[in-house]
Amino acid sequence: MTDLPDRISLREVGPRDGLQNEEPVPTEAKVELIDALSHTGVGRIEAVSFVHPKAIPQMADADEVWSRVRRAGDVRYSALVPNLRGAERALDAGFTELEVVVSASDTHNRKNVNRSTEESLDDIAKIIDLAHGRGATCQVIVSTAWGCPYEGDVPVERVVGAASRAVRDGADSASFGDTTGMATPPRVTRLVGEFRMANPDTSLNLHFHNTRGTGLANVLAALQLGVADFDASVGGLGGCPYAPGATGNIASEELVHMVEDMGVATGVDLEALIDVAARAETMVGHTLPSQVLRAGPRSRTISP
Amino acid sequence: MTDLPDRISLREVGPRDGLQNEEPVPTEAKVELIDALSHTGVGRIEAVSFVHPKAIPQMADADEVWSRVRRAGDVRYSALVPNLRGAERALDAGFTELEVVVSASDTHNRKNVNRSTEESLDDIAKIIDLAHGRGATCQVIVSTAWGCPYEGDVPVERVVGAASRAVRDGADSASFGDTTGMATPPRVTRLVGEFRMANPDTSLNLHFHNTRGTGLANVLAALQLGVADFDASVGGLGGCPYAPGATGNIASEELVHMVEDMGVATGVDLEALIDVAARAETMVGHTLPSQVLRAGPRSRTISP
Repeated sequence: MTDLPDRISLREVGPRDGLQNEEPVPTEAKVELIDALSHTGVGRIEAVSFVHPKAIPQMADADEVWSRVRRAGDVRYSALVPNLRGAERALDAGFTELEVVVSASDTHNRKNVNRSTEESLDDIAKIIDLAHGRGATCQVIVSTAWGCPYEGDVPVERVVGAASRAVRDGADSASFGDTTGMATPPRVTRLVGEFRMANPDTSLNLHFHNTRGTGLANVLAALQLGVADFDASVGGLGGCPYAPGATGNIASEELVHMVEDMGVATGVDLEALIDVAARAETMVGHTLPSQVLRAGPRSRTISP
Repeated sequence: MTDLPDRISLREVGPRDGLQNEEPVPTEAKVELIDALSHTGVGRIEAVSFVHPKAIPQMADADEVWSRVRRAGDVRYSALVPNLRGAERALDAGFTELEVVVSASDTHNRKNVNRSTEESLDDIAKIIDLAHGRGATCQVIVSTAWGCPYEGDVPVERVVGAASRAVRDGADSASFGDTTGMATPPRVTRLVGEFRMANPDTSLNLHFHNTRGTGLANVLAALQLGVADFDASVGGLGGCPYAPGATGNIASEELVHMVEDMGVATGVDLEALIDVAARAETMVGHTLPSQVLRAGPRSRTISP
């Protein structure tokens, strides 16, 4: 295991991807969550999404949340945008890192946004141009990258094709999302390999779900390929509302706990992160899936 | 990932390790569980333990359970024994595969059986002799192999030393138990490597817990070393009653689901195993941790 990266960059997606898939919480709680995360050592936070309030009421107050957040100088904040209108709102709010999503599965994409994958990629090209015109970066996130709950397997060529098209259209980086937890280690190895062959100079983020228990095994497989950029959600907040059976993001504490013990630095203060996870649990009012929140880090012993 | 084994042997520990750590269920339910598992393709089942009824009331009916089980010809059944008396009971009941446990951590061993690790190893030598004298095999299971909830890290030398002593005393195989889920992939790599250096001809089983989410990542690391013998518990039944914070065994369905998708055969019919996990959940009356029980295998699609 000597080829592991020395360090990974963790993008904390709890405030957006997490809370978007929970019952709505007050604006104040969202601000509190982002502010608390900003002091854990996490280098990047996906803060909000600028979606239509009718589609996703959980993010209706995105502007207000963002205006009230006390931004930390050493944290990069990003916003997810579903379309040109959302991108304009995000840019107007001062975001300099945008994310756009397209599903590699046509059926899944149509269920979400009533368009084909290609039509969404056409829209994404315009959003990238808009972002660049205003000095911001734009990442393309390809969801259902390891399988679609409706279609089953999605051909790797199709997944890489969608990402590559956006890269050609100017996307600054790419991310693959395992929307319903259908990835397994060899599938991670294959997709990462094929993407890199097609896009050797493009930075790659991976976003795993733990729907079938393989989340950290997939992280391990990716680390062994030198991937050093992962999404995770504090406490394991959230999931995908469009994906029946989805049980949500890998927990940030579990990711940090495992990779730090492997000698891979994250910059995160694990105990501080666990404290935030406990607050997030209180915030949403139900047990979160994070095992490390429950058990504590392996270093936490008890008296005999 | 080309050095993976073609096939692994799964020992299903739900009926013993699982049920021993749940509220007691009726004898009939235990028999039903073992009988159902016997028809899933699982090659080995840890059926019961012959412990003192006062210590572990869940296993007070071990003799009756075993006498009522309809043994399948293609399944190997084993029993855990805590001492010579238990070994005699198991052998009298007709078991030909025994397991004995010792904790690598002195503190943990004393908490469990009020003896030092060395004293337990002395006892184990006698149990091995007894088993061999009656034509049975005996596996030594070294618990707290990747850490102790009281002592924290346990030196690898100590863990390998305990296993090696039992191997010298005649143990037919060894198993390392991650009692409270403190293993991470590089720790798996290191312990397996050190054990093999000391005992190149001894068969090795690994028993992981998912207490901190690393269960399947640890399996992946072990597979990459060619380890081909794992414990898992249907539905994720059970845990360790002596280990505060323990959340139990990795779920058999999650293990089978992941490794089969990696091209590693298990012989298990996953859908049949999921059906048994659902019955086990009804049996214990609470939600079990298995994610694949919840979400189904990745191949199970839904209508758009």
